[in-house]
Amino acid sequence: MVANAPLFAATGPDDAMLRNDAKTTEDVLTYGMGYDQKRYSPLAKINRTTVSKLTPVWNLSLDHSANASVQPLVIDGMMYVTTHNATVAIDALTGRQKWKTPVNLPQDVYASLCCGAQSRGAAAYNGKLFRTTVDARVMALDIKTGKLLWETKLADYKEGYAFVLAPLVANGVVMVGNSGGEFGTRGFLEGLDPETGKSLWHVWTVPAPNEKHGDTWAEGVYLKGGAPTWVTGSYDPALDLVYWGTGNGGPWNANARGAGKDNLYSCSVLAIRPKTGELVWYYQFTPNDAYDYDGVNELVQSELKIDGQMRKVIMQANRNGYFYVIDRTNGQLLRANQFAKKLNWANGIDMKTGRPIESEMTKKVKSSLESDEFYEVWPGAYGAKNWAPMAFDPKRNLAYVNTVNMGMRFKTVKPEYRHGAWYLGIEMGGFPAPEDGKRGALRAIDPLTGKPKWSNELDTPYLSGVLATAGDLVFVGSMTGEFLAFDSDTGKKLWSFQTGSGITSLPITWERNGEQYVTVVSGSANLYQAIAADPNLANVPAGSSVWTFKLSK
Amino acid sequence: MVANAPLFAATGPDDAMLRNDAKTTEDVLTYGMGYDQKRYSPLAKINRTTVSKLTPVWNLSLDHSANASVQPLVIDGMMYVTTHNATVAIDALTGRQKWKTPVNLPQDVYASLCCGAQSRGAAAYNGKLFRTTVDARVMALDIKTGKLLWETKLADYKEGYAFVLAPLVANGVVMVGNSGGEFGTRGFLEGLDPETGKSLWHVWTVPAPNEKHGDTWAEGVYLKGGAPTWVTGSYDPALDLVYWGTGNGGPWNANARGAGKDNLYSCSVLAIRPKTGELVWYYQFTPNDAYDYDGVNELVQSELKIDGQMRKVIMQANRNGYFYVIDRTNGQLLRANQFAKKLNWANGIDMKTGRPIESEMTKKVKSSLESDEFYEVWPGAYGAKNWAPMAFDPKRNLAYVNTVNMGMRFKTVKPEYRHGAWYLGIEMGGFPAPEDGKRGALRAIDPLTGKPKWSNELDTPYLSGVLATAGDLVFVGSMTGEFLAFDSDTGKKLWSFQTGSGITSLPITWERNGEQYVTVVSGSANLYQAIAADPNLANVPAGSSVWTFKLSK
Repeated sequence: MVANAPLFAATGPDDAMLRNDAKTTEDVLTYGMGYDQKRYSPLAKINRTTVSKLTPVWNLSLDHSANASVQPLVIDGMMYVTTHNATVAIDALTGRQKWKTPVNLPQDVYASLCCGAQSRGAAAYNGKLFRTTVDARVMALDIKTGKLLWETKLADYKEGYAFVLAPLVANGVVMVGNSGGEFGTRGFLEGLDPETGKSLWHVWTVPAPNEKHGDTWAEGVYLKGGAPTWVTGSYDPALDLVYWGTGNGGPWNANARGAGKDNLYSCSVLAIRPKTGELVWYYQFTPNDAYDYDGVNELVQSELKIDGQMRKVIMQANRNGYFYVIDRTNGQLLRANQFAKKLNWANGIDMKTGRPIESEMTKKVKSSLESDEFYEVWPGAYGAKNWAPMAFDPKRNLAYVNTVNMGMRFKTVKPEYRHGAWYLGIEMGGFPAPEDGKRGALRAIDPLTGKPKWSNELDTPYLSGVLATAGDLVFVGSMTGEFLAFDSDTGKKLWSFQTGSGITSLPITWERNGEQYVTVVSGSANLYQAIAADPNLANVPAGSSVWTFKLSK
Repeated sequence: MVANAPLFAATGPDDAMLRNDAKTTEDVLTYGMGYDQKRYSPLAKINRTTVSKLTPVWNLSLDHSANASVQPLVIDGMMYVTTHNATVAIDALTGRQKWKTPVNLPQDVYASLCCGAQSRGAAAYNGKLFRTTVDARVMALDIKTGKLLWETKLADYKEGYAFVLAPLVANGVVMVGNSGGEFGTRGFLEGLDPETGKSLWHVWTVPAPNEKHGDTWAEGVYLKGGAPTWVTGSYDPALDLVYWGTGNGGPWNANARGAGKDNLYSCSVLAIRPKTGELVWYYQFTPNDAYDYDGVNELVQSELKIDGQMRKVIMQANRNGYFYVIDRTNGQLLRANQFAKKLNWANGIDMKTGRPIESEMTKKVKSSLESDEFYEVWPGAYGAKNWAPMAFDPKRNLAYVNTVNMGMRFKTVKPEYRHGAWYLGIEMGGFPAPEDGKRGALRAIDPLTGKPKWSNELDTPYLSGVLATAGDLVFVGSMTGEFLAFDSDTGKKLWSFQTGSGITSLPITWERNGEQYVTVVSGSANLYQAIAADPNLANVPAGSSVWTFKLSK
């Protein structure tokens, strides 16, 4: 545990501070609570023994009724929170708002948003805060005053592009990726100059026909090929590689993208040089995906002993139901085990080829452009885990994961592109719950086997991020509004507090003046509610606010 | 202290339960925490010694960004909260929303609202909840399900009528009064049948020319004469009298309403038989008011020894700066002492006539329809106390009052009525703060002298209701969002908690299973902010939620 981070005055965190974020406990400078995105804190004052005394110390309304999916930052005693329509600076100890800078959005932006008006957070660097907007801009604000310094339009929201993720600042470059994979867009990553907002590089995730891997797509589809990049990548400064996941191909109908064609780089992880955008290696989780199995989920770094050898790995609990462990120096697949409770699209991952062994159903689904019958695939499009990130406890080598157990009924239909509308090529027949009604579970997963050490089965899944601490605690939020702490070893619920709305955001912990704090944003309304029609959520009101807790005296 | 109130199943509170509300600690059945509106609880588990352990136990978002000025009710383990656009039922122990019934409002209602979209609360009786709406309706909901049972339109909101108050159920009649005195309306009280919503009686507060006191108005003005009835009256079941205050005359320009004419029943208290609407007695605080000195503030009942004799009194801290004590059996004025810090409109109240001794400035203001110069009157139109109710501690015979110290600059102009617009007949020149910058104070006031036992001077006034308890505590909320507890004897701040928004609502306390709870709604945005331009409120976000606190273990 490193002592107080130095004050940085008006200059903001520098590269060294960003690299140390996971170790410095007074601040939270990066999405993931460290470039490795473990969401693990060495703080232990709040622990199994003391957590019963955890109590709110302040709350701040965000005056916002859309989905709150943000991870706050804490820098030099100030907290920074984004919503889709504002950036807010808050005194971290008192909860008093210091400034609030609106994001002015065109009224018609809401018509073309696939998955909610939201913002996952900001990035900080050299006295600036960077954030994205749902109308496809990147903004830089003065970290002290909230004043707009520059903004760069990266795409046309009217074409279905949106940005909701927290930017990543890696090796002095601001990196962002797009949402909108369901709207006939073409995914990309962009590297921007933090000082000016000028583009340094632009990388399409779907190659043109004459480019490398252009032949992995059917003819004429690449401009609407999807493979969006809507979750923030992790960064290894020692290797100078950024790991960034890509989403499903567009349209969802796999046959339309070319029978037997892999559709690179959809549903993949890309290892990128942040200075140049150079692709150093890639691995594709789900070639020619037919089920919306985005590969965007967080890519958590750790060092794991595998087959007797310490390996630098990235881990991903993929929507497709497999838990992947990959050598992050070279992209070698080390483990890929099922963590989904129910899975019928594949019979495993072939460790020699790294490719899924598709089930007969999947082969049939892909065999034709249109089907007469409805299929029922598990996991469904919501995935065995959605985007909200897991935590990884390096002391126990366990990943704490909010898993989902829902199927999807659908049949394939001929895709027809319409401007600003969903472009799927499938007809949806619902998202069935499992027979036991447990649509989700919080699990402590062994990354090498995919098996749970413990599992808390849930009627309504948790869809918040997870936070793990050296206090032997795991924090999550429920969609019915409880913020909860569990024992890292047993999953026993040790504490909870009923916040004002549902929680789908990313908790953090930090310390100041020797006291440990936990912060989470409450504010529900997400895609799950729309597709699951979960009766437990019928009486959960919207209305976002920031909650900070500490131990009562 | 009376033990648990009996369960009432689906029938709701009856007359006997309403009469006992101030003594029963498990419920809060009435606006004012008792028909006498003392806002005093016999509960004492939360007290000077224990209050440091007071901590939030749950929060519920109201998904509402307008002004929250509600007093919740607690009935049979359920809590009922109103906003201008919904009625919400909440499990009082867990904070889980049980049902929420929207108030569907026409879009154009917001154009003609003088003083904010808000709701002060509901009334409960015989299995029903009653509430008013800003488009001038009264609604009855099934208390168990929230289903609409009846609604009655009482006036046309397009003419400037609005309803924001909690109804009063007295002797089996639902009584309500109107807002909209600044829009050229004519005030009234209405008695409704709780079963059907049918009007039982209707009383104009401004008589027609041919009626009694019709001659206290200039010719041709009575139809826009104001005297609205926008704050809930108190009720003495033993005398079967309801005490209800009336607002300023319309327009504000006193000369326009008749030089030397009293303008009855504006700025008065009316003692009314609830069954019939019969006016038994009245007292006028401010005849021919020139400064928006509504007489609507709460009329708190107690028994006080005055000149050696126990008297049944009502007390009012009037906007005009005087603290009135009136015999509630007959309307006799017993005391009227200045509690305003600064006051220049009068030189006292003549105890023989009960009339104010107007200052030279006031005589001059009233002497002409139009003035060349600006006047500066203290208190200003916001009053030395605004509508949010004081508490009265019968053990100490002290009133705890959120007082205001702001002036008003204005000159008189010829009033011109325009449909749906402010109808004042004055030109506003601002609301000056006092030289010391203390725009308000929380005071413990001796009702017989108007003098403070203690006073906490404030840059920004508190504008919440006040709650006093037998735990020797006084609770109030600040517009910067703190919920606070003070020592009843000294005014010393003992505890505070930063809620998410500003507090302008009415706190309550109640108990369940032997534990004492305190509940307050946070959610700012009120008229004060608009007129005072108080820099302390520049960074207070809107966003309403319900907070419930208890002692941590």
